[in-house]
Amino acid sequence: MTGFSTTHAETLRRAMAAARSRGHFSAYPEAPSGKIYGETAKAEAEAAFAALLGKPFEAGDTLLGDEHSPWGPRLGITYPAHGVETLVARAAAAAPAWADAPGDTRAGVCLEILHRLNRASFLMANAVMHTTGQAFVMAFQAGGPHAQDRGLEAVAYAMDELSRIPGEASWTKPMGKEAVTLRKSFRAVPRGIGLVIGCATFPTWNGYPGLFASLATGNAVIVKPHPAAILPLALTVRTAREVLAEAGFSPDVVQLAPDMAEAPIAGALATHPAIGIVDFTGGPAFGAWLRAHVGGRKALHTEEAGVNPVVLHSTADLAGLCRNLAFSLCLYAGQMCTAPQNIFVPAGGIATDRGHMSFEQVGAALVAAIDALLSDPARAAGVLGAIQNPATLDRIAAARGLGRVLRDSAPVPGQDAARTATPLLVEVDAGDRAAWGEERFGPIAFLIRCADADAALALAAGSASARGAITALVHSTDEAFLARAEDAFARAGAALSENLTGGVFVNQSAAFSDYHVSGANPAGTSCLTDAAYVANRFHIAMARRPVAA
Amino acid sequence: MTGFSTTHAETLRRAMAAARSRGHFSAYPEAPSGKIYGETAKAEAEAAFAALLGKPFEAGDTLLGDEHSPWGPRLGITYPAHGVETLVARAAAAAPAWADAPGDTRAGVCLEILHRLNRASFLMANAVMHTTGQAFVMAFQAGGPHAQDRGLEAVAYAMDELSRIPGEASWTKPMGKEAVTLRKSFRAVPRGIGLVIGCATFPTWNGYPGLFASLATGNAVIVKPHPAAILPLALTVRTAREVLAEAGFSPDVVQLAPDMAEAPIAGALATHPAIGIVDFTGGPAFGAWLRAHVGGRKALHTEEAGVNPVVLHSTADLAGLCRNLAFSLCLYAGQMCTAPQNIFVPAGGIATDRGHMSFEQVGAALVAAIDALLSDPARAAGVLGAIQNPATLDRIAAARGLGRVLRDSAPVPGQDAARTATPLLVEVDAGDRAAWGEERFGPIAFLIRCADADAALALAAGSASARGAITALVHSTDEAFLARAEDAFARAGAALSENLTGGVFVNQSAAFSDYHVSGANPAGTSCLTDAAYVANRFHIAMARRPVAA
Repeated sequence: MTGFSTTHAETLRRAMAAARSRGHFSAYPEAPSGKIYGETAKAEAEAAFAALLGKPFEAGDTLLGDEHSPWGPRLGITYPAHGVETLVARAAAAAPAWADAPGDTRAGVCLEILHRLNRASFLMANAVMHTTGQAFVMAFQAGGPHAQDRGLEAVAYAMDELSRIPGEASWTKPMGKEAVTLRKSFRAVPRGIGLVIGCATFPTWNGYPGLFASLATGNAVIVKPHPAAILPLALTVRTAREVLAEAGFSPDVVQLAPDMAEAPIAGALATHPAIGIVDFTGGPAFGAWLRAHVGGRKALHTEEAGVNPVVLHSTADLAGLCRNLAFSLCLYAGQMCTAPQNIFVPAGGIATDRGHMSFEQVGAALVAAIDALLSDPARAAGVLGAIQNPATLDRIAAARGLGRVLRDSAPVPGQDAARTATPLLVEVDAGDRAAWGEERFGPIAFLIRCADADAALALAAGSASARGAITALVHSTDEAFLARAEDAFARAGAALSENLTGGVFVNQSAAFSDYHVSGANPAGTSCLTDAAYVANRFHIAMARRPVAA
Repeated sequence: MTGFSTTHAETLRRAMAAARSRGHFSAYPEAPSGKIYGETAKAEAEAAFAALLGKPFEAGDTLLGDEHSPWGPRLGITYPAHGVETLVARAAAAAPAWADAPGDTRAGVCLEILHRLNRASFLMANAVMHTTGQAFVMAFQAGGPHAQDRGLEAVAYAMDELSRIPGEASWTKPMGKEAVTLRKSFRAVPRGIGLVIGCATFPTWNGYPGLFASLATGNAVIVKPHPAAILPLALTVRTAREVLAEAGFSPDVVQLAPDMAEAPIAGALATHPAIGIVDFTGGPAFGAWLRAHVGGRKALHTEEAGVNPVVLHSTADLAGLCRNLAFSLCLYAGQMCTAPQNIFVPAGGIATDRGHMSFEQVGAALVAAIDALLSDPARAAGVLGAIQNPATLDRIAAARGLGRVLRDSAPVPGQDAARTATPLLVEVDAGDRAAWGEERFGPIAFLIRCADADAALALAAGSASARGAITALVHSTDEAFLARAEDAFARAGAALSENLTGGVFVNQSAAFSDYHVSGANPAGTSCLTDAAYVANRFHIAMARRPVAA
C-alpha cells in the first residue's frame, strides 16, 4: 500500500467491518459545523458557489446547461459536452491502467476523492440546494456526508468482494498412483465502462453508490447527470479527476457527460457496446426502457418509482406518531424516494394512549401535527425546502380532486422567489385505488379508510409488491401484528420501520446499516448496498498451467 | 442443526473452504468403481434403467416424452406434465415454508439430495448416456459426481453469501448529548420461484448449479428439461422430492416440467410473473429471447454458445501437445461447451522440441494424433460417444465445404446402431471468418492460418469477445507471450489453459477451482461459480424499531 491507500486504510477497514455488522458508522461528520469543517468554510463556500454562477464551469468547444434553482435564480452555468463516441473512446483509453491497478490502490483513490468531497461539503450543499430545492441543512447532509458515506459503503462492499478471490491456487488432483498439479492464477477483470445516470433530487446520494462501486471494481465511469442537477455531479467529477491525475491515472477514468432535457444522451450511452454497467435513478418510463434494452446483457441497477405505505394499527404515543409522521410527510416536501404517501387506517379507528381514536380523529391529529410543524414559516421553509420540478405543482392540483381534502397544499409564506408547497392530505377509501395506487411524487399523501388493520396491511404490502415501495412504516402495540407486518413487508421488499415517534424518520436510510432498495419490487432492480450490487461489476479471469512433476 | 444438516455439516464446511481457496476438492468420487459404489451397483443400475424403459416414469393425467438414445433405442418413457399455472401454483404453495426454514436446514436437505444422487450415480450414468450420447465413463463422471460437485459448490456459495447477513444489529447514533438506539433485524428473502431450463448434452452438470443455488437461497424451483434429455433431471427431481418430503417440506419445492420440442413451455414459464429467477443452458436464439424478455427485471443466468480458441505459438512437447489437443477435439465429439473449435497457427509454423515445424507439419501431426487416438474402434467409441442431435451430422457435412479438409469425419466402425462421427478438421485462412467465426457445434474444428502468433492471439481473443468463448488454450515456451495471452483472454472472459500436454484437458472445468463461464462475452451472462451467481437470488429484508432509552 502506498499513498492514498495508506492514508485511508483505517477508514476502509472500519467501513468494511461496519458493512458486515450493520451497526452505526459514519466516516464523514453530518453536522454543518464550523468546528468540524472550519469556521470560514460556510462563507468561503458561498463565495465559491457565487463565483461559479453565470459562466462556463470549464472551458470547452460545446457548452450546455440550463439549471434553475427551485429557490429562484437561474444558475447560468454551462458545462463542456462531448459526443458519445468521444466519451467512450476516452474512457476506453483510460480504463486499462485503472483496471490493472491493485485493488487497494483503487480503494485509496476512491477514499481520497470522498475525503476531498467531504472537505468541500459546504460548497456541495450550495450546489445541491440550488439544483434540487433541498433546504440548506438537508442539502449539506444528504448531498454531502451522507452521500459520501454511501460512496464509502460501496467501496467497502467492492473490497470485500474482491478480497474473496485468491490471486493464486495450487490444484493437485490424485490420478491413480500419480498426481497432477496445476498452478492457477485468478484476477478480477472489470466488466466494462460504467454509466451512472443521475437524478434531480438526490444527485450525489443516489449517484455515489454506483459511481464508487464501479470505480472500486476497476471500471472507468461516465457520469450523466440529470439536466436539472448537473452542478453537484460536475463538482464530484472534477474532484475525482484531480485525485486520479495526482495518483498517476488518466483523469478520463471519470468523465462528466452533461446533456439537455430536449436532447438526451442517456439512451445512446447505455446501449453503446462499450458500456457494461448502467446505474440509473429516475422515473419508471426510462427505467422500463433500460430494462428492455440493456437489462439482459449488461449489469443494470435501477432505482425507480415507489409508493411507500404507512399502516396504523395502534400506538402507545399518538402525539409522537403524529409528530414523527408529519415530519416525514413534510421533509423535502415528499420528494424523497423514501417518503410515505399512503397512510392506511382502519375505518373503525385505532387504539391509542389517549383512548380509542376514530378514523376522523386520527386524520385530524395528523393535520394538526403538520400545521404545528409548519406554523413558523422559517422552520417550514427549512423542513419543506423547495419543489424541484414545476410538474409537481400540477400534480398537487390534480390530486385535490381525488378525494376529500383533509389538509390543502399551499406555498410557504415569505418564500415568494422559491417554488414551494406544503403537504396535501386527501382522504380516500381503500377501493379508490385509482387515487392512491400509483406514485404521486411530491407533497401528496392519502389517508386511506380500510376495513380493519389486517386489511390495511394487506393493501399496503400488496401495493408495495405490485407498484413498488422502498420503505414502509407501521405503528402497533401488538407484537403479533408487528410480526405479520415484518413478514408481509419482507416478502414485498420494503424496508420496515416500526413505531417511530422520536427523532428517527422512515425517510432516513443510514449508510452501513440500512439496506436501501430491495430489488424485490418495481421500485428498483437492485439493493444499492449489498453484495449483489457490486459482485456483477467484474468477472474473475483465470489461467492455469501444469507444474512439472 | 438437526438431521441432514448435522449429517453433512463437515462436507459443507470443507466445500465452503474449497470454494475460497480454489484448491482441489471433490465430495463425490469420480471413479465408476465397485469398490466405492458397491460391487453390484453397476448391474443393479442397468436393471433399474431397463425397468424404466417403455412406460410412464410416474402416473399422471397427461403423459409426454419422446427420448431416443443416440446409441440407438427409443427410450419410450413418458412423464406427467402439468400446465404452467398448475406448476406455478404448486410451487407458490410450497415456497413459504421452504423460504422460512433456517439456511442450514435447507443446506442439509440440498446435501442429502446430492448424497442420494451420488449413490445413484450408476443409474444416472445410464440415463445421461442414453439421452446425451455420452460414452459410459463420461456419463458417469460428468453426469454424476462432477455434476454433484457443481451442485455442492452452488450450495457452498449460497451459504457463504447468507452468512454475511447479520440476523440482528443494534444501531446507536449520537444525537447531540443524547443518543438514539434502533434494534434492527435482517433476513434473506428468496427472490421468487426459480426456473431451470436444461440442455440436451449436460443436463445435470449444467442444471445443478442453478437448481441448488436457487434451492439453497430459499426458492422453490421448477425444472424444465430439454425434451431430448428429460430422464436425468426426472431422476434428480424425484430424489429431491423424496428428501424434501422426509424433511417435512412439500415435495413441490422442486417440480419437473417436461415438454415436447413441438410444444415448448419454457417461454411461458420464464415470463410468468411468479418466476423470479431463470437459469438457462442452451442456444443463443432462445438465450437472446430470454435476455430481451426477462433479463431486465428477473435474475437471469445463461450459458449459450461459444467458439473456443486454441493459439499455438511454440511448444517444448509437440507430441504431448498433439495428443492432448487430439483428445480434446475427440472427447464427446466436440459436444462440450468447453471443447476447442478454432486452432490458430502462424503461417510460418512454430518452434518445437523437434525443431521448427511448418504450418502443414503441425496440421499433419495433429491429424496423426487424432488418427492414433481413434485407431482402436472400442476406444474411439469410448472417447467420442455418440452424436446427441442429428442436426450435428448435417453441420459436419456443410463444414466440409468451408476449406481444405485435413481430416474427414466418419462414423465409428462397429457402432452401427449409434449416431457417431469422428472429428472433421478443416484448414482455412484467417480471413475466412465466415467459416470459423461462428460456433459449429460438434466434431468440427478449423486449423487457421494466421500471419504470426500475435495475430493469432488477437484473432482468438477478438473472436472470444465478439462471439463468445468459455475456454481458451495456448501453447508457448515464451513467458512474455503467455503473459500477453493471459491479459488478452482475461479481458475476453475465456478461462485460459496453458501448455497442456498430459492428462488434463482444456475441456475440463473442475468444481471448486475453475470458474465456469465468465459472463464477460456472449457465451453466457454469468459465471456459474461465483458470488454474483447466488447473490441476486434473494434480497435482504429489514425491520427496525426504537429501543426505549
